[in-house]
Amino acid sequence: MNPLLIAFQGEAGAYSELAALEYFPEPVQTLPCRSFDEVFERVLHQECSHGIIPIENSLAGSIHRNYDLMLHHELHIVGEYYLRVNHCLLALPGVKLEDVRIVHSHPQALAQCEQNLNRLGVEIASEYDTAGSARLLRDRADRRAAALASRRAAEVYGLQILVDAMEDNRQNFTRFLALSRTPFSRQTSDEREFKTSIVFSLDNKPGALFKALGVFALRDIDLTKIESRPIPGSPWDYMFYIDFAGYIAETNSRRALDNLQEITTFFRVLGSYPRHRMKFE
Amino acid sequence: MNPLLIAFQGEAGAYSELAALEYFPEPVQTLPCRSFDEVFERVLHQECSHGIIPIENSLAGSIHRNYDLMLHHELHIVGEYYLRVNHCLLALPGVKLEDVRIVHSHPQALAQCEQNLNRLGVEIASEYDTAGSARLLRDRADRRAAALASRRAAEVYGLQILVDAMEDNRQNFTRFLALSRTPFSRQTSDEREFKTSIVFSLDNKPGALFKALGVFALRDIDLTKIESRPIPGSPWDYMFYIDFAGYIAETNSRRALDNLQEITTFFRVLGSYPRHRMKFE
Repeated sequence: MNPLLIAFQGEAGAYSELAALEYFPEPVQTLPCRSFDEVFERVLHQECSHGIIPIENSLAGSIHRNYDLMLHHELHIVGEYYLRVNHCLLALPGVKLEDVRIVHSHPQALAQCEQNLNRLGVEIASEYDTAGSARLLRDRADRRAAALASRRAAEVYGLQILVDAMEDNRQNFTRFLALSRTPFSRQTSDEREFKTSIVFSLDNKPGALFKALGVFALRDIDLTKIESRPIPGSPWDYMFYIDFAGYIAETNSRRALDNLQEITTFFRVLGSYPRHRMKFE
Repeated sequence: MNPLLIAFQGEAGAYSELAALEYFPEPVQTLPCRSFDEVFERVLHQECSHGIIPIENSLAGSIHRNYDLMLHHELHIVGEYYLRVNHCLLALPGVKLEDVRIVHSHPQALAQCEQNLNRLGVEIASEYDTAGSARLLRDRADRRAAALASRRAAEVYGLQILVDAMEDNRQNFTRFLALSRTPFSRQTSDEREFKTSIVFSLDNKPGALFKALGVFALRDIDLTKIESRPIPGSPWDYMFYIDFAGYIAETNSRRALDNLQEITTFFRVLGSYPRHRMKFE
């Protein structure tokens, strides 16, 4: 059996790579990409079987760029995965916690560990990437520095884990989406175990969004996410991204979407896929 | 008359400073702050008369962090301003366009000028800040480099403008909010010339958002913006941020908000303020 090859954004050891390794069944290989655009291109051009992208963090909110990329590329969401974001404090082997004077990481990781970093009384330095800050630490062989990155980055760059949970808030999850050239397809008997992601635009009239949400409310369909994004070049018209509980092949979901298309000016299904039930639910 | 003192995030020459200088009436002075948090703190502690923060860009979407900060600080939105984002290519005096090999700026500014930069055939380098990249250019006295930043940054750092509109898309506007310790208050006769910004949460039930939007739709009140944000520590419950056309002291708006509070679990008015009509509207 050929291994799956999964494109992800970032350097080896990035949280996206960790999500790919936890989500996809073995055997699986991963391919680091410089940008989210490259993730989409690699899958579209059949160089990778799947892509994995972060779409939403429980503390920081949505990764909006990836909504735009889904709109502009013909890939399908085939799955979702909630990764517990666990920022580890990494250092060169043999370095002690009290030797650490400065901590490097991405600004968001630094912000999510602010209280614990203050307790350590260290300086902080912003870097482009969490895994990249781990790699730089190894390359510079700096014994007075540490990096905040994933457990996976410690393996990849031969670093030791000084503290294994530096994040101030344990309710730190990132939702990842698995992307493929072909849609997910299956007979199913329980539509509550599925989610469907759609994107649409409406005439810019009072009450338009109210009517759009009505097609779900009238059928007792649970919305799990709503997001509005400006349409570039057409300020301030919006694209609406909605996730709802339901499978697109089921009658109730299909009727809601048929009804919705009576009032949309643009409409597309991004994917209909098995729901990941998080441990904290 | 004492000048107004306006707190903004970023270095001297940042787009936020330019927005402050264009929005507030003379005489006005500006105070650079290291973070958005500091902007809020300076106003709350009466060190500044007002703050100005970016909240939404027509291409890139919302600045989510600032929604969270508005929720957690007792300041009032007293005005809005749409700034046309005009990225200038800046260099040391005497440097010619053909000498430029590398362009420094914030990743978002670089992305918004991607096509024009490709045409120049230059390398790009990501920096923390647009105005900061202009300052670094001056400090390093690098005659083979340029920075993408505001026209204001050229004045502040003594740089020349090589190209005055590097952005690929001219529909690039950032909406700024003016903040104050006291709410805006005025007798008004035309509620269409006002906006009101609110934040609320709902029971996590199917149809809850539909009901909430109904209080506006039933009264023909136009929503100009809707945004959902996760509530930290309570994944995936959401706060909803809505802007609508109307003044809070008018009967129609007041009734809609009274009605809304029958179904919200949390509710706050962030501000009710004169609307800025953009030129492209």
